[in-house]
Amino acid sequence: MTAGFDPRYVKRDFASIGTRPLRPDGIDKVTGRARYGADFNMAGQLVGRVLRSPHAHARIRSIDTSKAEQLAGVKAVITAADLPDLTDGDAAMYDILDNCMARGKALYDGHAVAAVAAVDARTAKQALKLIAVEYEILPHVTDVDEAMMASAPVINDGVFTDGVEPKPAKPSNVAKRSQFGHGDVDAGFGQAEVIVERSFRTEQTHQGYIEPHACVASVSADGMADLWVCTQGHFVYRQHCAQLLGLEASKLRVTSSEIGGGFGGKTHVWAEPVALALSRKAGRPVKLVMTRDEVFRASGPTSATSIDVRIGARRDGTITAAEATLRYSGGAYSGAWAELGAMTAFACYGLENVRTVGFDVLVNRPKCAAYRAPSAPMAAFAVESVVDELAGRIGMNAVDFRIRNAAREGTRSSYGPVYGPIGIGPTLEAVKMHPQMQAPLKKNQGRGMACGFWFNFGGQTCSDLNIGMDGSVSLAVGTVDVGGSRASLSLVAAEELGIDYSQVRAVVADTSSLGYNDMTDGSRGTFSSSMATISAARNAIRIMRERAAQMWDIPVDEVGWEMGHAVALGEKNGNLGRLSLKEIAAASGKTGGPIAGHSELVADGAGVSFATHICDVEVDPETGATRVLRYAVVQDAGKAVHPTYVEGQYQGGAAQGIGWALNEEYIYGRDGRLQNAGFLDYRIPVCSDLPMIDTQILEIPNPNHPYGVRGVGETSIVPPLAAIANAVSNAVGVRMTHIPMSPPRILAALEAERAG
Amino acid sequence: MTAGFDPRYVKRDFASIGTRPLRPDGIDKVTGRARYGADFNMAGQLVGRVLRSPHAHARIRSIDTSKAEQLAGVKAVITAADLPDLTDGDAAMYDILDNCMARGKALYDGHAVAAVAAVDARTAKQALKLIAVEYEILPHVTDVDEAMMASAPVINDGVFTDGVEPKPAKPSNVAKRSQFGHGDVDAGFGQAEVIVERSFRTEQTHQGYIEPHACVASVSADGMADLWVCTQGHFVYRQHCAQLLGLEASKLRVTSSEIGGGFGGKTHVWAEPVALALSRKAGRPVKLVMTRDEVFRASGPTSATSIDVRIGARRDGTITAAEATLRYSGGAYSGAWAELGAMTAFACYGLENVRTVGFDVLVNRPKCAAYRAPSAPMAAFAVESVVDELAGRIGMNAVDFRIRNAAREGTRSSYGPVYGPIGIGPTLEAVKMHPQMQAPLKKNQGRGMACGFWFNFGGQTCSDLNIGMDGSVSLAVGTVDVGGSRASLSLVAAEELGIDYSQVRAVVADTSSLGYNDMTDGSRGTFSSSMATISAARNAIRIMRERAAQMWDIPVDEVGWEMGHAVALGEKNGNLGRLSLKEIAAASGKTGGPIAGHSELVADGAGVSFATHICDVEVDPETGATRVLRYAVVQDAGKAVHPTYVEGQYQGGAAQGIGWALNEEYIYGRDGRLQNAGFLDYRIPVCSDLPMIDTQILEIPNPNHPYGVRGVGETSIVPPLAAIANAVSNAVGVRMTHIPMSPPRILAALEAERAG
Repeated sequence: MTAGFDPRYVKRDFASIGTRPLRPDGIDKVTGRARYGADFNMAGQLVGRVLRSPHAHARIRSIDTSKAEQLAGVKAVITAADLPDLTDGDAAMYDILDNCMARGKALYDGHAVAAVAAVDARTAKQALKLIAVEYEILPHVTDVDEAMMASAPVINDGVFTDGVEPKPAKPSNVAKRSQFGHGDVDAGFGQAEVIVERSFRTEQTHQGYIEPHACVASVSADGMADLWVCTQGHFVYRQHCAQLLGLEASKLRVTSSEIGGGFGGKTHVWAEPVALALSRKAGRPVKLVMTRDEVFRASGPTSATSIDVRIGARRDGTITAAEATLRYSGGAYSGAWAELGAMTAFACYGLENVRTVGFDVLVNRPKCAAYRAPSAPMAAFAVESVVDELAGRIGMNAVDFRIRNAAREGTRSSYGPVYGPIGIGPTLEAVKMHPQMQAPLKKNQGRGMACGFWFNFGGQTCSDLNIGMDGSVSLAVGTVDVGGSRASLSLVAAEELGIDYSQVRAVVADTSSLGYNDMTDGSRGTFSSSMATISAARNAIRIMRERAAQMWDIPVDEVGWEMGHAVALGEKNGNLGRLSLKEIAAASGKTGGPIAGHSELVADGAGVSFATHICDVEVDPETGATRVLRYAVVQDAGKAVHPTYVEGQYQGGAAQGIGWALNEEYIYGRDGRLQNAGFLDYRIPVCSDLPMIDTQILEIPNPNHPYGVRGVGETSIVPPLAAIANAVSNAVGVRMTHIPMSPPRILAALEAERAG
Repeated sequence: MTAGFDPRYVKRDFASIGTRPLRPDGIDKVTGRARYGADFNMAGQLVGRVLRSPHAHARIRSIDTSKAEQLAGVKAVITAADLPDLTDGDAAMYDILDNCMARGKALYDGHAVAAVAAVDARTAKQALKLIAVEYEILPHVTDVDEAMMASAPVINDGVFTDGVEPKPAKPSNVAKRSQFGHGDVDAGFGQAEVIVERSFRTEQTHQGYIEPHACVASVSADGMADLWVCTQGHFVYRQHCAQLLGLEASKLRVTSSEIGGGFGGKTHVWAEPVALALSRKAGRPVKLVMTRDEVFRASGPTSATSIDVRIGARRDGTITAAEATLRYSGGAYSGAWAELGAMTAFACYGLENVRTVGFDVLVNRPKCAAYRAPSAPMAAFAVESVVDELAGRIGMNAVDFRIRNAAREGTRSSYGPVYGPIGIGPTLEAVKMHPQMQAPLKKNQGRGMACGFWFNFGGQTCSDLNIGMDGSVSLAVGTVDVGGSRASLSLVAAEELGIDYSQVRAVVADTSSLGYNDMTDGSRGTFSSSMATISAARNAIRIMRERAAQMWDIPVDEVGWEMGHAVALGEKNGNLGRLSLKEIAAASGKTGGPIAGHSELVADGAGVSFATHICDVEVDPETGATRVLRYAVVQDAGKAVHPTYVEGQYQGGAAQGIGWALNEEYIYGRDGRLQNAGFLDYRIPVCSDLPMIDTQILEIPNPNHPYGVRGVGETSIVPPLAAIANAVSNAVGVRMTHIPMSPPRILAALEAERAG
């Protein structure tokens, strides 16, 4: 069923929602008791290891595994032949399959070509060295703009650009073209008094989760299989693996471990089908844990981009036209979502004439995966840089210029839908009043601000709520807890049932114990699982009212529910008083058995969300090093279920954005090999790199959710690249158009300016 | 809700039920991949060990744990002080608490008095030696008859016999008196032409499960707790442990491991609260695995008994009166169920005048637990011995005599209720025709037969059935699979949904993922979980009909369900055809989300069951050794869901009965210490001791179950003691009245006979 809540009513008085109780997984996580992907073991378990291509692009002429197979202690060696193509024309799944284990061609440095399972890590490592692969090296391309050139080597002969009519006759590296917009853009630019046009580049980054991909797979001879795995969505992993291995989904029981970060990077399978195939061949369980090097070279980083933006405005501050062309690298497969960049680029603004065109581009790099609001930060970087420059050119304050053009309720968005109640205006008003805007700046310091938008998603969701005989509540949900959703959903159950948070324990159920759930992505976890939990709790309340009616011997429609109690309604029942949830639960064995509420639904109506960030930086003109002095996030949460977690999401997004803006990037050599596959050379910000990130939660209720909840996890990474670029540009007096703004790049920009 | 099936309709045409597919846990069990109680580990886990009393009865003057605490590597030492009494007047729970850890007095050899958690087993063992306990030894009693004497030491000053009016003024070792029956027994004996009266004894036995009690407990500082444990009922263990530790039930997530046998012996807690208390004190997870010595000395064996039976009959073979007095030892607590012995003793027969009196007796032995049809085998041994002797005395064939007196539909049972359709008559008729009855017997060989009855139970049960998008089905149940119920319940789901068995995977869900379930005991597992599974499947079918109606755009009442397909009903829908479960499941994401069926119910109406066994033995008159030559079980299963498992239960009950009848017994010395706490000295039958046990399944449908299912697990252990005693008595020409009929005891009986 769909949720079916009455959209006219959004609850506003809360007992539990909005409080900040302790997180249920906290102690286990800080004491090391929490069980992550690598913290599980099975009797007789083998160690799995993957052999990877050292070439960016190469035909695999042959693989000789015989020597490895003969090594004592090696129990299985597999190649693509052991993962036959069962995808039946499903192109997306075929990409995933081919990415898990190269079939015929290795498409990037790090592409898996074979794997072994052995009794220990040493033997497995030795076995990898005994596998002889004969490669025919092919020309490669790793740059997004170069890959679009006619002269570029074509990575996949089967790719003919989607989204153009007529379908191209020749294959190319452009997998897809997407276009959005409305109005007459050319006419709009004709009305403009000032036009700014710029080109931007962003480099590929990695989500940088602490925990590498890890799983333990066990396939029995009778086809029963189990998978313990670190993932953002064990139900989706079950589906992927079942399809790739030819299992029925129900035969594969997937349990999600605690997760040491995902940020979109654990939303599809890499090592898992390989581990299952190894286990199937070896007849024993196999543990497969990626090294950090493998995570960098062969999991799913984000796109590198090349973006052109042009915006025109009148001198009164009204934008008359805007357009953008966005090119996103997707790795060696269709891993890019230029579409999302094209949709989000101008989503903060109410524009009469707007057009965006996106291109998904294949390059010889690992297949991209989602990274927190995928594609939006790069588009926002380009657009918000131009918006800032344009405001300056017409002499308007950057905040006022944005307020003037901000989208509002009723605005037709640049990607199509008409907005309901939204928060971009309020975040800008809040930023205008924010004390950081008044903080004095010294020499070499600059301030920037920028806006960001994200859709947020809903999707399929299930929740089982079971009331124990002592009245305490077990809540089983299926969205992996990546950011504290067990606490938030316990608050939701407590709120709805009218009991204390401490009475509820939420767990993430395995795939055999609960119905299908979409991934924890699209900021959908708390939004959608709270919808299902509210629905399940209301079903349980209905049953408790029936039980109370039975205990009182009155009709059920004379029983209401208030603050954790059944109440007898009407004058004639006045002497009956109230029955607490605890009392009803204690009697349940005699009134019909266990009390539960269940819900399976499609959570429609995730509310879009907006944020505006302020950043103050100081740039050392001699070294080009940037220090972030102050940082503030203002974002609409709809309703903040657990404000501490919401603030944590705001801070986390900003922190990742700071790393992306200033330092992080994949560096490929001319040989197509990744040169910095480790945290020493790929520099993510550490605590000492970051200021305290100030947060401000706005609550513009989402009318489609009974509590007004929107997603909160992703929007916070959308503005930072732009906010920091604007700050750095203001500090150094040069418009920065290439991210990351690493010290050498800032020095080069200053040099170019001086040479100017 | 209660099940609410229409009792007028019991399904009789089956597609899946009654077939014999492979068991889903089979391969994992034979390859060692299955995970039992000791096969789970957590990071930082400690080893728990228990210090036990060497005395049968002793006051604990003091326990000095200081030296143990100072030993390097010891992380926690606990005594009863660490398990404070939170039972709030709940006497049964207090017994369990005191049995887990002695409070003030040690009541039997093996009673836990302290426990340690240390970094390894060696350190833990060493620490136990450093705990100084000062005991004041008290007089003890281990024999059931001696314990009832006025001169016996009183084990518990707080025990005043229950069930007598007025309540006794003095405490005694008789915890409870139970009485059942109807008619005028004295008048009945007055009508009797032949009366046989005998006294019997049976010795205490152990269930003899292969897997010792084992658990891993983890209590976090915030009160969240996890328990991995080998148990017959993880929901009951959760309740016990939560109450004893002062946790809310929902805070304790209990996962049941695979179980290497239970037979009633894993139905309450011993080591588990101790492991949790150790973990709470140490702040780390604790694994606690009992040794075999501990299992014998300090888990829950069955009662020793002393039983007097008197039956009178007319020469035409009609029983006119029957009475029995049954004394069951319960260990140092009220662990006996003489009540069940008193209820079952004459349950096979339709009697006008019957009276049974049972006594629960305290002795200085471990607290008894259930052992497969608890209390019934000993009562049947005594009654069926006298019935056999009485038949002989009036010159009637033993089978015909029983057929003449057998209970039938409409009979008022000796324990009260009036029987519905039952199977005692049919089992006797089948035995009469059984080829074994015609097999010739040689010298020193004898044949015996006997009947047995068991109630079977129902109780609280939950089932969640989730249909994956590929149409395969995940079934989550909460009754621990001790005898193949995952296979049986998969058959039930397949039957109801109209799909193939191979499409279903059943799992036993943990306590956080499903509603409360009673224990797997009382032969209730398949009976009650199949009721819940049928109900859940029917709920899922209702949803699938709704989805099909939506896909066809017709009203739901025009959609039926046949053999795994939605069918459009009525002429006007004739062109719509059928939609398979697979097709409906594939569309579910677009028709409202995941499809599930749930059920929480009290499974009422478990059908009583009856069995008749035949046993042929040969006794070596020189050694007293008995060899079982042939053995046949005939039993009513109601409907056999998975006949192979039913046969396995029949064979298993007979095998355990053979061990109990011939060899197994607890041997206590005069010092009150157990002398044979190990499988070398406590001899259970091995394969070479047993013949192939022939089985015959009768199917007299239980009208309270939609498929007619009854319980099958326990009844098969009720007749063996009697059947074998009758066989041995016939072989040696002496009535055997003391079980086990071990070689020394047979020789002694022959000696006594010769001595006259």
